[in-house]
Amino acid sequence: MTVAPLLVRTARREQTERTPVWFMRQAGRSLPEYRELRVGRTLFETCESPELCAEVTLQPVRRHDVDAAVMFADIMSPVLGMGIPVKLVENVGPVVDEPIRTAADLARITQSDPTEYAAGILGAIRIVRRELRPDQAVVGFCGGPFTVAGYLIEGKPSRDFLLVKRMMYSDPATWHGLMARLTDCFVPYVQAQVAAGADIIQLFDSWVGNLSVNDYEEFVAPYSARILAGVKEVGVPSIHFGTGTATLLRSMAAAGGDVIGLDWRIPLDRGWAEVPDRAVQGNLDSTLLLAPWERLEAGARDVLERAHGKPGHIFNLGHGILPPTDPDQITRLAAFVREYGQS
Amino acid sequence: MTVAPLLVRTARREQTERTPVWFMRQAGRSLPEYRELRVGRTLFETCESPELCAEVTLQPVRRHDVDAAVMFADIMSPVLGMGIPVKLVENVGPVVDEPIRTAADLARITQSDPTEYAAGILGAIRIVRRELRPDQAVVGFCGGPFTVAGYLIEGKPSRDFLLVKRMMYSDPATWHGLMARLTDCFVPYVQAQVAAGADIIQLFDSWVGNLSVNDYEEFVAPYSARILAGVKEVGVPSIHFGTGTATLLRSMAAAGGDVIGLDWRIPLDRGWAEVPDRAVQGNLDSTLLLAPWERLEAGARDVLERAHGKPGHIFNLGHGILPPTDPDQITRLAAFVREYGQS
Repeated sequence: MTVAPLLVRTARREQTERTPVWFMRQAGRSLPEYRELRVGRTLFETCESPELCAEVTLQPVRRHDVDAAVMFADIMSPVLGMGIPVKLVENVGPVVDEPIRTAADLARITQSDPTEYAAGILGAIRIVRRELRPDQAVVGFCGGPFTVAGYLIEGKPSRDFLLVKRMMYSDPATWHGLMARLTDCFVPYVQAQVAAGADIIQLFDSWVGNLSVNDYEEFVAPYSARILAGVKEVGVPSIHFGTGTATLLRSMAAAGGDVIGLDWRIPLDRGWAEVPDRAVQGNLDSTLLLAPWERLEAGARDVLERAHGKPGHIFNLGHGILPPTDPDQITRLAAFVREYGQS
Repeated sequence: MTVAPLLVRTARREQTERTPVWFMRQAGRSLPEYRELRVGRTLFETCESPELCAEVTLQPVRRHDVDAAVMFADIMSPVLGMGIPVKLVENVGPVVDEPIRTAADLARITQSDPTEYAAGILGAIRIVRRELRPDQAVVGFCGGPFTVAGYLIEGKPSRDFLLVKRMMYSDPATWHGLMARLTDCFVPYVQAQVAAGADIIQLFDSWVGNLSVNDYEEFVAPYSARILAGVKEVGVPSIHFGTGTATLLRSMAAAGGDVIGLDWRIPLDRGWAEVPDRAVQGNLDSTLLLAPWERLEAGARDVLERAHGKPGHIFNLGHGILPPTDPDQITRLAAFVREYGQS
């Protein structure tokens, strides 16, 4: 009988030999080997090739010896299966030239099979699972429905989510129609990732922390709950993550997730106290990777001390790695966490 | 003996006849009379004229019959007294062409007398105080040191505050030097506003919620504490506000402020429980002003119910009024709050 990967056992709050560590956005622009591979190719093109997508996903695992490979994909990748053209613009983010604003726009949304539109990522999962050691995990990746809807409605990254909220409040039928369609797309997308070999799925609802608790519960939670239930149905655990979520943690846990992702704003022990019956992941400020080692180490130690060796802590950042991060700092941090508590 | 303005008595947590109401950014682009007055004039030019600045400040008080006039100024206004050129760029925000990045840059910062560089705003305070009823308050306005430092270092609005944090972590002497100079500028600025007639001062540290609790306490709190102590010294109460501060409220209260501003992310009762010995201000989501009246009213009622009629609640939004807001909605909301609980 094979032992499950360390990350999966921690997600289930089993007592483990040490704290697992990986980093959100560990694959990507912080690595020179990634920047080299990307020359002349768009991100979506890279994801379309199982070999390239697997290579980019594996680069940080080789370099930093982390406990998980997070699939290299964009939050907007499954939207390509919905017939909505999306561009990823350097230094801007996802741009949708014909945003979804009205009930009529919903008619433009189609549904297709993830084994077709996500064949590259699914093929990459098979390769990555084969390449990893059995104790390392493949983390499947899915954008959260609020965050993806935000890009689809605003047409670009937004600070206030004014058009999103205007739709929620003034045209709730269109909002709910859009969220239902996203959910109908995301459930088969995550299930296909599990079928291909993903050991755990992370739902990245990066910007959901912009919402009040009432709005989150009315407009988002039911859809996140359906996606996370879809993950559970196929027998793997899930990680439910957002930023700025200090006031939403209980509601997010109620929607689902074996692991609740904490951002850097909430001290880890305070965040865990909000969701005591779950595992937690986090939560070092990503910008600390730009700091001198002594300060970075002190920050990492603070996170680990606040976890108190309780089963169920996955070490990570509070958000993704920033592109200008020195990869050697990441490697050193991963080693520090692996060795922490092993005397 | 004159009775203090309703807002001031509420800030002191006295039992009052009703809940005071005003709105952050009530003066400005939501009002057609403001947009008309601004034709052909920059914001800084408008603030330089005591008459124009007073007029813009008074417009929303006349229109909405709110309990306070918040001085129309920019968060960067006092920076003009520090010899650092700042532009306010439409749809972008404050832009500093020669940002502060190194110890050498600190030498460019000068200190001048607020009665000179802020003569317009101070003159406007005298006019506004004379024009208001005695039960209405003049709210003086000062940017928070983190937020202002953020614009000075990044050179423009930022999502991650990467350069700011890099300076904090890697060159703390320059960071502390900048914060000390900002504080040296802001203390006389707020004290001059009080001398001119401001009844209360609000410190707007809009983006401070980006920081972890540890970083807030080490890098920001000591300076906010000095500014708020400077307000106390001249005998008026203060409001201490930021957004995304759910995890910082206790630390912000420890730094100072008779009133703690709550943003819309934290239910008002939960926020108040974090700072039980203070008054609180807030905290309706600004985007609800774009919603149909029934939803807006339900949101306002929820805020008021969570305040439970306890002395010390100032009704406000969780952040500023958004420019596309219909002013009639604002007027109606102000009336609803004024009449709430008066049967």
